[in-house]
Amino acid sequence: MKLASDNTSGVCPEVLAALNDEAARFGAAYGNDPTSAKLTDVLGEVFERPVQVVPVATGTAANSLALAAINPPWGGVACHPEAHIAVDELSAPTLIGGGLTLIPTEGEDGRISLEALAELARRRDSSVHAVPLTSLSLTQSTEVGTNYQPDEIEALCGEARRLGMTVHMDGARFANAVAATNSSPADLTWRSGVDVLCLGATKGGALGAEAVVVFRPEVAEHLDRHRKRTGHLLSKQRMVSAQMLGWLKNDTWLRYASHANDLATRLAEGLTDLGYELLHRVESNMVFVAISPEQAQDWWAAGAEFYVQPTETPRRLAARFVTSWSSTDADIESFLKVCGGHESI
Amino acid sequence: MKLASDNTSGVCPEVLAALNDEAARFGAAYGNDPTSAKLTDVLGEVFERPVQVVPVATGTAANSLALAAINPPWGGVACHPEAHIAVDELSAPTLIGGGLTLIPTEGEDGRISLEALAELARRRDSSVHAVPLTSLSLTQSTEVGTNYQPDEIEALCGEARRLGMTVHMDGARFANAVAATNSSPADLTWRSGVDVLCLGATKGGALGAEAVVVFRPEVAEHLDRHRKRTGHLLSKQRMVSAQMLGWLKNDTWLRYASHANDLATRLAEGLTDLGYELLHRVESNMVFVAISPEQAQDWWAAGAEFYVQPTETPRRLAARFVTSWSSTDADIESFLKVCGGHESI
Amino acid sequence: MKLASDNTSGVCPEVLAALNDEAARFGAAYGNDPTSAKLTDVLGEVFERPVQVVPVATGTAANSLALAAINPPWGGVACHPEAHIAVDELSAPTLIGGGLTLIPTEGEDGRISLEALAELARRRDSSVHAVPLTSLSLTQSTEVGTNYQPDEIEALCGEARRLGMTVHMDGARFANAVAATNSSPADLTWRSGVDVLCLGATKGGALGAEAVVVFRPEVAEHLDRHRKRTGHLLSKQRMVSAQMLGWLKNDTWLRYASHANDLATRLAEGLTDLGYELLHRVESNMVFVAISPEQAQDWWAAGAEFYVQPTETPRRLAARFVTSWSSTDADIESFLKVCGGHESI
Amino acid sequence: MKLASDNTSGVCPEVLAALNDEAARFGAAYGNDPTSAKLTDVLGEVFERPVQVVPVATGTAANSLALAAINPPWGGVACHPEAHIAVDELSAPTLIGGGLTLIPTEGEDGRISLEALAELARRRDSSVHAVPLTSLSLTQSTEVGTNYQPDEIEALCGEARRLGMTVHMDGARFANAVAATNSSPADLTWRSGVDVLCLGATKGGALGAEAVVVFRPEVAEHLDRHRKRTGHLLSKQRMVSAQMLGWLKNDTWLRYASHANDLATRLAEGLTDLGYELLHRVESNMVFVAISPEQAQDWWAAGAEFYVQPTETPRRLAARFVTSWSSTDADIESFLKVCGGHESI
Repeated sequence: MKLASDNTSGVCPEVLAALNDEAARFGAAYGNDPTSAKLTDVLGEVFERPVQVVPVATGTAANSLALAAINPPWGGVACHPEAHIAVDELSAPTLIGGGLTLIPTEGEDGRISLEALAELARRRDSSVHAVPLTSLSLTQSTEVGTNYQPDEIEALCGEARRLGMTVHMDGARFANAVAATNSSPADLTWRSGVDVLCLGATKGGALGAEAVVVFRPEVAEHLDRHRKRTGHLLSKQRMVSAQMLGWLKNDTWLRYASHANDLATRLAEGLTDLGYELLHRVESNMVFVAISPEQAQDWWAAGAEFYVQPTETPRRLAARFVTSWSSTDADIESFLKVCGGHESI
Repeated sequence: MKLASDNTSGVCPEVLAALNDEAARFGAAYGNDPTSAKLTDVLGEVFERPVQVVPVATGTAANSLALAAINPPWGGVACHPEAHIAVDELSAPTLIGGGLTLIPTEGEDGRISLEALAELARRRDSSVHAVPLTSLSLTQSTEVGTNYQPDEIEALCGEARRLGMTVHMDGARFANAVAATNSSPADLTWRSGVDVLCLGATKGGALGAEAVVVFRPEVAEHLDRHRKRTGHLLSKQRMVSAQMLGWLKNDTWLRYASHANDLATRLAEGLTDLGYELLHRVESNMVFVAISPEQAQDWWAAGAEFYVQPTETPRRLAARFVTSWSSTDADIESFLKVCGGHESI
Repeated sequence: MKLASDNTSGVCPEVLAALNDEAARFGAAYGNDPTSAKLTDVLGEVFERPVQVVPVATGTAANSLALAAINPPWGGVACHPEAHIAVDELSAPTLIGGGLTLIPTEGEDGRISLEALAELARRRDSSVHAVPLTSLSLTQSTEVGTNYQPDEIEALCGEARRLGMTVHMDGARFANAVAATNSSPADLTWRSGVDVLCLGATKGGALGAEAVVVFRPEVAEHLDRHRKRTGHLLSKQRMVSAQMLGWLKNDTWLRYASHANDLATRLAEGLTDLGYELLHRVESNMVFVAISPEQAQDWWAAGAEFYVQPTETPRRLAARFVTSWSSTDADIESFLKVCGGHESI
Repeated sequence: MKLASDNTSGVCPEVLAALNDEAARFGAAYGNDPTSAKLTDVLGEVFERPVQVVPVATGTAANSLALAAINPPWGGVACHPEAHIAVDELSAPTLIGGGLTLIPTEGEDGRISLEALAELARRRDSSVHAVPLTSLSLTQSTEVGTNYQPDEIEALCGEARRLGMTVHMDGARFANAVAATNSSPADLTWRSGVDVLCLGATKGGALGAEAVVVFRPEVAEHLDRHRKRTGHLLSKQRMVSAQMLGWLKNDTWLRYASHANDLATRLAEGLTDLGYELLHRVESNMVFVAISPEQAQDWWAAGAEFYVQPTETPRRLAARFVTSWSSTDADIESFLKVCGGHESI
């Protein structure tokens, strides 16, 4: 019943095989190797256009470097108040971006609304005194497990472009969004106006592999300098590239993402049947339900692993359950048995 | 004849085995896992005292985070002009340290001299206008493949402590130094006054594994915050810990380091016999000889892989050869044959 | 009808006299002069306790340096969403603070509410991933011209202290607050729990003189280093100290502040009589009323100088009028005549 | 006998008159005022071409902002090891520049030599790992009171441009250089290839007035943002502009600079006659002579004010004497009497 996070899972066999293969070879350092070159080619195929690729080991690195590259240091990044960059990265985007400001931009179910973005712009002071709006950051799938549809992305990116903003997408769970929306990677990104995607494989089954995928290199010119001077250029970068290649090969990434999504859907159905209130629509591999502090204690005591977050009232917690490539039907069914043994609030 | 760098080698079997083992498991994220706890214990045994351990994926990250933790942002770090932090990290220690200044401190054969450090201090303005000397950074083995002996470290650290400076050691090739000096890890570090060591396993056979090892936690209080806010806290940190455990187990690290050192010694002897001038004493796994630009071209054409660096005269280059855990006698002998076929300068 | 800002006024005679006097002398550079020493003494009398004083030339410098000194670089500063540090300083506190995050904390009439602060703390994640709450920043008088009463400050500071936060007060218009609340400078600051005050004289009649006044030096140890390394240590600092001494002497600062407050009150009454809606209570030297875009155009055309800010609806603007030491009754009466000639919304 | 620094002098009457005049007026804030506009025009005349002008209150601010504007954050600034930016600004250029590195570049008498710059470039690694050479910073007059001639500036700037570097000039004592070299401001700057000059009036008789004068705006695009976000945009900027206008008017600046230069020459002659060894050629308003620690003590005891700096031997100090607009013949003669009463070393 390990539902705390997809990042507690191990490494999937496909990634591990690719890694073992690469590990056996000599190879040029710092990304000047054939495996890294191949990754760029493969991602070009995945996204149906030439891309620039900067592999790193963590999602926070990917997000921070991407934002540093597409914003001036005094820039402002409109992001959802619950975005990972805003709440889970200890201001790394600010530090690495040379002083960037994150600007909370509201919207339901973890998604920025077009109205909120437009209103933010309307009320923004354009003088030298105020932080200008320079980037929009979208998370796909969002922090609460919902997805933006391509037309929603297009509308938001269109508004951003009109306002002179670049667009970043945090895709730590991009695979889940692709699998869930039945949309192509291209439609979910550059065809809808995204400039830079941080594509995460770590939560999806890699050891530690993320790639900044640049669709509009003219707005992210110095990404390589930012990476080097923050210590994120790995000497054996090819080991990261190899992981990602193993993950992408034969649609492994999408197969695992679908698997995780399906288990989350099953879990949501089971919880609903038991009378629990879902706090967000379940569209990827995360389920949020309202529980009491006592329930949380009971479930933990029964061996379930999950996180809780505070809500607007102290008596009510938001319990978060995350499935992964390595979750099993048995995990879900065991957990539902635990929940069934307790009363819902 | 792959002598360009120890970071072009693959991953050694012992590390790979540990990694595959860890990869098969679930485990808590962000270092709250038993493997990471075990690494702290094992390093405690290696260094014969309790230590704090912060694993990261790159050497630049380790150095920069360690320096950020033991210096105020306006501090000055005395380091050799050829130190990795000064010439190969694109000012990462400066950025991550919040504006740190690196202060070149001379000495022969890549080692800071006690006299240079004392003279630096004597001439330093102590007012609010000048960057104060707040840390000493030693590299072991040095960038030119030499080593500090324990008594030399002790003298330098003693002077540093007297001046109110903390002491950092860049140990990207610490294993080579331990193997070469017949000194204990403890004697080469905290027993001689080092506060924080960046212990590198990547060049020694890991995929990407470095550990900041803290001997004096009271001078490096916020290392974990620095790591998080630069994107260097890996969610699956246990995979880095596992690599390092595999590398340390049964003295694997020292065995490989000795192997590399021995091959470098053999190479140096061979080159000397052929009449080449060694530019530095050969004490670890690196050999520097003076060659002409034409010789460099010829050797590269013959398939040898190595880097050259400029010297004080354009007609003379410093060729650098680095051996690793995976180098073989055959590599060395093949290469010496190439060299023998050309005239020395 | 110059009501755009108190910083468009000239220099009051008392400050100018002190400046001319100081200008005629030699004096030690960088604050090591008797005038600066005297300023520390005089502020000690004003605040009824020993203080540390760091004079600078701008309010943004004062705020940013104070916050840099009392927060770690990864810290979070709870401030009102409309605070000057949040909306008018182009992220200077973030840059100078090494990456500080400002955390919007709501409350009516420009004042942070105790409930908002407590709720912020309740929902804050205390792990290494989240920006911790490390400071509370209050503005007195606030950006909308209201004041915190001493008991309100005490309650907020008490909560902050309980949460382990330091407390900063932006006192760009502190003189207006002292004059308006009939409270002592001590009661409005350290006696109620404020650690560091940025006392502004520029808006009150100086050329460019602000002082960071430190009540709890143990939480702001390195203020002098921060000042120097941001270029805010003036060589002829004594000229700033002299201005502030001239301003403080014989309660000049409070006399002018009362004058400005009184004119704002008169203006508010006049506008109310004319049927305009005041957007905030008028407690210092600022008046906000709702007007239409057309009214703004008309009044500007009639020679009135003032700023407008957007509100929640495009058809409605918040017009801001600021009085100063040099405003006159005639200014107010002339302006009210302009307003009277137009219909209110 | 106040010879410690030109920044211990008061404010010259011409600057004070202009300041009093401006102080009596209302005026738009943040530089949107006619006085600031006039300063731009007047500096355009002084430099015989259109310029952009950014007034600030300190020399460290001017230098740091100029360097921040003309370098990427990872850039390297070649400067003399004794440059003010390198030794007297507590790494402000590094902080404000987002992590800039200052690269010591040697040369006699405080001036960078063309050979040193070329050699630096020849040995520079051009990979992503090394800090690139992005700016050259010249100081005029230098920290030891010497001057670059126009042809020397031209040669250095030519080499810099060839290397893709921008050029900054620290002109804290630019007036002294203009007065001493009989060269036009234009010939000493943009006609010889300087991109940005920091023109200092503070040491020359102002209260606190420096101007970043931009000759090539395309390399310093965001200077205004850098200024704002470091707290260096003064609300009453017009008071700084007024000072500088008063200083420039009727060649006041050059008249005072000549006066100071002449007194330094007289002092140098007197000291030479008394047998003291000049440590540098005396070309502006500074004189350096070798003295013993005992002499320093004696002269201070006799009332002379001056600084000493360490030299290569502990028994020998470099005494620095600086004349200013307010120094008098009597100061010099009194001081020479003091010196004459002691034996030279």
